[in-house]
Amino acid sequence: MRRQRYNACLPELRKDPITGRWVIIANDRVKRPSDFFRETVIVQGGGFCPYCPGNEAKTPPEVLAYRQSGGPNEDGWSVRVIPNKFPALRVEGTLERHGEGMYDKMEGIGAHEVIVETPDHMTTLGELSEKQVESVLWAFRDRVLDLKRDVRLRYVLLFKNHGAPAGATSEHSQCQLIALPVVPRQVQEEIDGALRYYDFKERCVYCDMIRQDVAGGARVVLETEHFLAICPYAPRFPFETWILPRKHASHFESIDVPLAENLAWILRALLRKIDRTLEKPPYNFVLHTTPLQESAMPHYHWHIEVIPTLTKYAGFEWGTGFYLNPTPPEEAARFLRDSGL
Amino acid sequence: MRRQRYNACLPELRKDPITGRWVIIANDRVKRPSDFFRETVIVQGGGFCPYCPGNEAKTPPEVLAYRQSGGPNEDGWSVRVIPNKFPALRVEGTLERHGEGMYDKMEGIGAHEVIVETPDHMTTLGELSEKQVESVLWAFRDRVLDLKRDVRLRYVLLFKNHGAPAGATSEHSQCQLIALPVVPRQVQEEIDGALRYYDFKERCVYCDMIRQDVAGGARVVLETEHFLAICPYAPRFPFETWILPRKHASHFESIDVPLAENLAWILRALLRKIDRTLEKPPYNFVLHTTPLQESAMPHYHWHIEVIPTLTKYAGFEWGTGFYLNPTPPEEAARFLRDSGL
Repeated sequence: MRRQRYNACLPELRKDPITGRWVIIANDRVKRPSDFFRETVIVQGGGFCPYCPGNEAKTPPEVLAYRQSGGPNEDGWSVRVIPNKFPALRVEGTLERHGEGMYDKMEGIGAHEVIVETPDHMTTLGELSEKQVESVLWAFRDRVLDLKRDVRLRYVLLFKNHGAPAGATSEHSQCQLIALPVVPRQVQEEIDGALRYYDFKERCVYCDMIRQDVAGGARVVLETEHFLAICPYAPRFPFETWILPRKHASHFESIDVPLAENLAWILRALLRKIDRTLEKPPYNFVLHTTPLQESAMPHYHWHIEVIPTLTKYAGFEWGTGFYLNPTPPEEAARFLRDSGL
Repeated sequence: MRRQRYNACLPELRKDPITGRWVIIANDRVKRPSDFFRETVIVQGGGFCPYCPGNEAKTPPEVLAYRQSGGPNEDGWSVRVIPNKFPALRVEGTLERHGEGMYDKMEGIGAHEVIVETPDHMTTLGELSEKQVESVLWAFRDRVLDLKRDVRLRYVLLFKNHGAPAGATSEHSQCQLIALPVVPRQVQEEIDGALRYYDFKERCVYCDMIRQDVAGGARVVLETEHFLAICPYAPRFPFETWILPRKHASHFESIDVPLAENLAWILRALLRKIDRTLEKPPYNFVLHTTPLQESAMPHYHWHIEVIPTLTKYAGFEWGTGFYLNPTPPEEAARFLRDSGL
């Protein structure tokens, strides 16, 4: 009898249709929002912050700012983009590759920038107005278009670390970008997997996911005219949620005004739902788009992946590349759907 | 002038010769042991522990135990292996695959076991005697040989999460194993990469690494008759260290007594050096060996990867699969080499 009870609902292996990655979904001991050890992110304020208005001279000179008043590197901006003071990669240098016996290396060419989302130290991205979130998205777009002109750069990753447990080192609300001289393997795997699907089906795998998930409904969190937020079928992490444009598009930087307005709404709404459902958890998001120097791809579909920090990335995960997810996406989507904005 | 100072030592991109994965090594703002925020792991004791002697009835029945006295599931053991009470995967079921529209899934067949390394709650793996560490290694070997008989299982990952920040949920010193019905992608990538190298060079890439690193010396941490501990050329994480058998071997489970004795010594010595250098940090290790049902591979070389938990796995890392490592392996190896045992 005991055994039967234990096996009532077996764990399940699910395969991500894009990358082919398997994940273990624990159907038997499902974790709900209150089951996670959560570290609520609360902005403390106080202390010196180089990203606050008035301290513009304490950062490297800005590369972009939207401002109502003032000149470059002065107060009066609403969004400000600056090079990271301690960049992971630098613009100076050449792309020459060297050998060290059997090993290969190259200079760390690239860019590493901070997108300060608001002059207000005490707020978070989900708490900003829709207009302000939209401005952040335009800053993303403008920086990608600018970096694209440097043909040494192959990829720009836009990402956000929110809260110290998610890797944030400053509490002033910000996103980051890193421009790389190689296409990162995570993105290349998505593109390769999507191409295999396209070769077989002659359809975009993301477009097919959208069609199936909208029809089924169980994994849908939010729908707008131009976007969809879903918990994917084989998520690596509990409450992992993706935002995808409904209409096929391979390059994020091609967004127009109606799309940007709509994306600002859905991103803000999703972050607010995550805040409510999981008590303002730390989180990361990344924007996956087509490599800079590539033209339109019928098989690859840009999107944003949002991941609250609820579990540890431990020995099993990095030893295997397998993920153990204690919350089925249908459950996660239901909790997120049912919470208010 | 300022710019020149900033560029004195540029970041470097290094390529892992096995998987082709690039990592960013921050040569310019190198982090030394004291620069990391470290969370020292201290065994507290107190409270009920199902892994302590006398509580054998509180765990599922053991699948293996080395004991001086007592019968199965009684006190008197030195190493005890038990199924995880809340396993990620179970032995019962079939491997049948199902579709859900465009998606694929299968039952979560496999095994998830806990290897309790010692009856003593208050100690850690690095603090055990060499003989006791060797017993743990024999338990690894015996479990792999047993699980190998189930032909549905394709891989066994042996791993350790030490300390809560590294994912440990109990403080009683233990390793875990997860047996999987598919070869995990991380291992498959290593095998595929090693095969590409072998096809080109007709040599094992790990054997070549050993030759070059022993000759150079800068990345060597420890050497014994049969094993080598090195910080690899393109490490993902600061102070990441690998232990490799000097003589080519694809299957861990083929170790004999001289090798097991020698491995116990070097694993224990490395963990003690990590404890001294980084003030008893949380860490993970994984044992990568050839898939269960494969015969000897001339191109793949089993090894252990040890990773102290010093940095966060944040937006950039999981958005790209790229790693940003603030400690060059030559620096890490020097610190570890210079510390006592």
